[in-house]
Amino acid sequence: MNAPHDPSSVGAAVAQKAQFSEPLRLKGGATLPAFEIAYETYGELNAARTNAVLVCHALNASHHVAGYYADQPDNLGWWDNLVGPGKPLDTRRFFVVGSNYIGSCFGSTGPASVNPATGKPWGADFPVVTVEDWVEAQARLADHLGIERFAAVIGGSLGAMQALQWTLSYPERIRHSIVIAAAARLTPQNIAFNEVARQAIMTDPDFHGGHYYDKGVVPVRGLRIARMIGHITYLSGEAMAEKFGRLLRRGTPGFDFDIDFEVESYLRYQGDKFSSYFDANTYLRITKALDYFDPAADYGGNLSAALARAKAAFLLVSFKSDWRFPPPRSRELVRALLDNRRIVSYLEIDAPGGHDAFLLEDPRYHKALAAYFGNIEL
Amino acid sequence: MNAPHDPSSVGAAVAQKAQFSEPLRLKGGATLPAFEIAYETYGELNAARTNAVLVCHALNASHHVAGYYADQPDNLGWWDNLVGPGKPLDTRRFFVVGSNYIGSCFGSTGPASVNPATGKPWGADFPVVTVEDWVEAQARLADHLGIERFAAVIGGSLGAMQALQWTLSYPERIRHSIVIAAAARLTPQNIAFNEVARQAIMTDPDFHGGHYYDKGVVPVRGLRIARMIGHITYLSGEAMAEKFGRLLRRGTPGFDFDIDFEVESYLRYQGDKFSSYFDANTYLRITKALDYFDPAADYGGNLSAALARAKAAFLLVSFKSDWRFPPPRSRELVRALLDNRRIVSYLEIDAPGGHDAFLLEDPRYHKALAAYFGNIEL
Repeated sequence: MNAPHDPSSVGAAVAQKAQFSEPLRLKGGATLPAFEIAYETYGELNAARTNAVLVCHALNASHHVAGYYADQPDNLGWWDNLVGPGKPLDTRRFFVVGSNYIGSCFGSTGPASVNPATGKPWGADFPVVTVEDWVEAQARLADHLGIERFAAVIGGSLGAMQALQWTLSYPERIRHSIVIAAAARLTPQNIAFNEVARQAIMTDPDFHGGHYYDKGVVPVRGLRIARMIGHITYLSGEAMAEKFGRLLRRGTPGFDFDIDFEVESYLRYQGDKFSSYFDANTYLRITKALDYFDPAADYGGNLSAALARAKAAFLLVSFKSDWRFPPPRSRELVRALLDNRRIVSYLEIDAPGGHDAFLLEDPRYHKALAAYFGNIEL
Repeated sequence: MNAPHDPSSVGAAVAQKAQFSEPLRLKGGATLPAFEIAYETYGELNAARTNAVLVCHALNASHHVAGYYADQPDNLGWWDNLVGPGKPLDTRRFFVVGSNYIGSCFGSTGPASVNPATGKPWGADFPVVTVEDWVEAQARLADHLGIERFAAVIGGSLGAMQALQWTLSYPERIRHSIVIAAAARLTPQNIAFNEVARQAIMTDPDFHGGHYYDKGVVPVRGLRIARMIGHITYLSGEAMAEKFGRLLRRGTPGFDFDIDFEVESYLRYQGDKFSSYFDANTYLRITKALDYFDPAADYGGNLSAALARAKAAFLLVSFKSDWRFPPPRSRELVRALLDNRRIVSYLEIDAPGGHDAFLLEDPRYHKALAAYFGNIEL
């Protein structure tokens, strides 16, 4: 099957897997005896190996960053608007690596993988992983691909935390870090939303303490609620008002518990869709990785001290309508980097999309990224 | 048992019930054949019957506004800091009526009451009730108590919606309306939070489509999640940060799914407590009443036109840290009342408590209420 020719598309992508047999010691103390990382690449690594850009994904995305699959022409990568020939992250110039992370349900070793110690899925026994662990695993992937140093690492939201952590775990391996819609740590309110989502999953009778793979059920109800809560925090109140208003789906109030308002329909749809493909054990672990991320914690809360070891140049981008990680959270990072005399560019965009704005194609945003990438010397 | 004598307490309160045998036609089209309203009163109705103040409650409160119960000296009314001898709503001067509403689980006719048509609890068959219906039922209570006209009606949040609706349903019966932490209608984001709470309840296997009373179970899981979501919206992000920070309950991250952060402990506790006493069918109906409230809907969205029939004088109060119904939502009401040349006082308080600030004892807030009530002529 041939997708229509689009010169700005990377074309048909191929998901790959890299195997690592060296055990990975995790921050929480557990050890993964061996693991796989799923990834995709677009463009060509140059001879000097200086043009690699690592794209880190957020909560429910994957290593499928750009292009489509030959047998699924409609399955576009989650950042296809950004990555491709002539796009802001131009694959004619850069070798782009989309990396999944351990604990995922999209191909890398995770809770649904077989635990070599038991021959059964890990389930609840899969360890709690952290952003630091993800960077460790991705560093192995970089080694595997022969990339000593990335021209840049880029990510939004949870992906931005990875982009930041890379500069702390491997300062010498990152020339530029592009940190979008980020926070240096979650607020108690951020954690609270994650906790409600976790409780919805863990109290679902079909969760079975995390060992549901052999029960023929998945905790669909809990995942549905978790996703609905997530969506409220991804969209701004303004964007919701703009998108749905108080439009009644049946014209008048139903005085029942079927769908009245359009926003209810949207949430139920998103919840149903998500719960049909996402793994609950993965969701639990991702929210923990978010909650735990706090580079300043080992420095008595002093973020400037925590970022002192970073050597990269930085671009930070935030969006005014993002109430999950609003601009002050990015400014805090900018200040801490400036305290360390890092080279920092910072852009605050008055876009309406809320936290999800980092996925959208705002011209100011994309022009800024195009300019930044254009200025990276190879 | 005697509670310690506190001269500013109304003392031991007695919950009462008023029976109404005249059917109540509801906004949604259903008819309640007969109903009861639970209420309490504090102070004395004067001979001219001009000193009655109606207190309307919000989501999980009740008619137990002030004082304690003789056999439960620690069970203080939810607005005991406001109502009593010498308090802002001074019971030496006013006859205060705390009214429950139909659909409640605290004594008024609701989903757990017996449906006379079947001899069994109403359950899912109890109609969806609205703020307008509550005012109709409370008007019957006023008749029952011999109160032709209230000196004032007061409420916060959902209670404020009732205080506003009274001035529209019975303009001649309300001299002053005190509308605190209010909104003229819910935003799609407000509705979204309600919908997630409802979905958590309705997808709980113990919900049984709302007919759980004879099953020996209640949808505890769903109620727990609903309450956790609610609490996130009642507290401001700043208040949560102040109250909990990122304090780890076990000192270090547990790398498991037990409680790590203090805020998780708080939410679980609040969820557990609420789910032990609140009725799920009531919760569903209250959130619908909130979603549906929109006096401007019948006026093409023109709030000024909708409020034209109000005759009361108004005091509105909002709190800057309230992100559920933030000050602009109150200002919108103030503007619409001014368009109608109503007498309006408006106070915007820079208090940190979030939406729940209306329950707290901020001196600026309480002094303003004391002054306002002090100026009401009897």
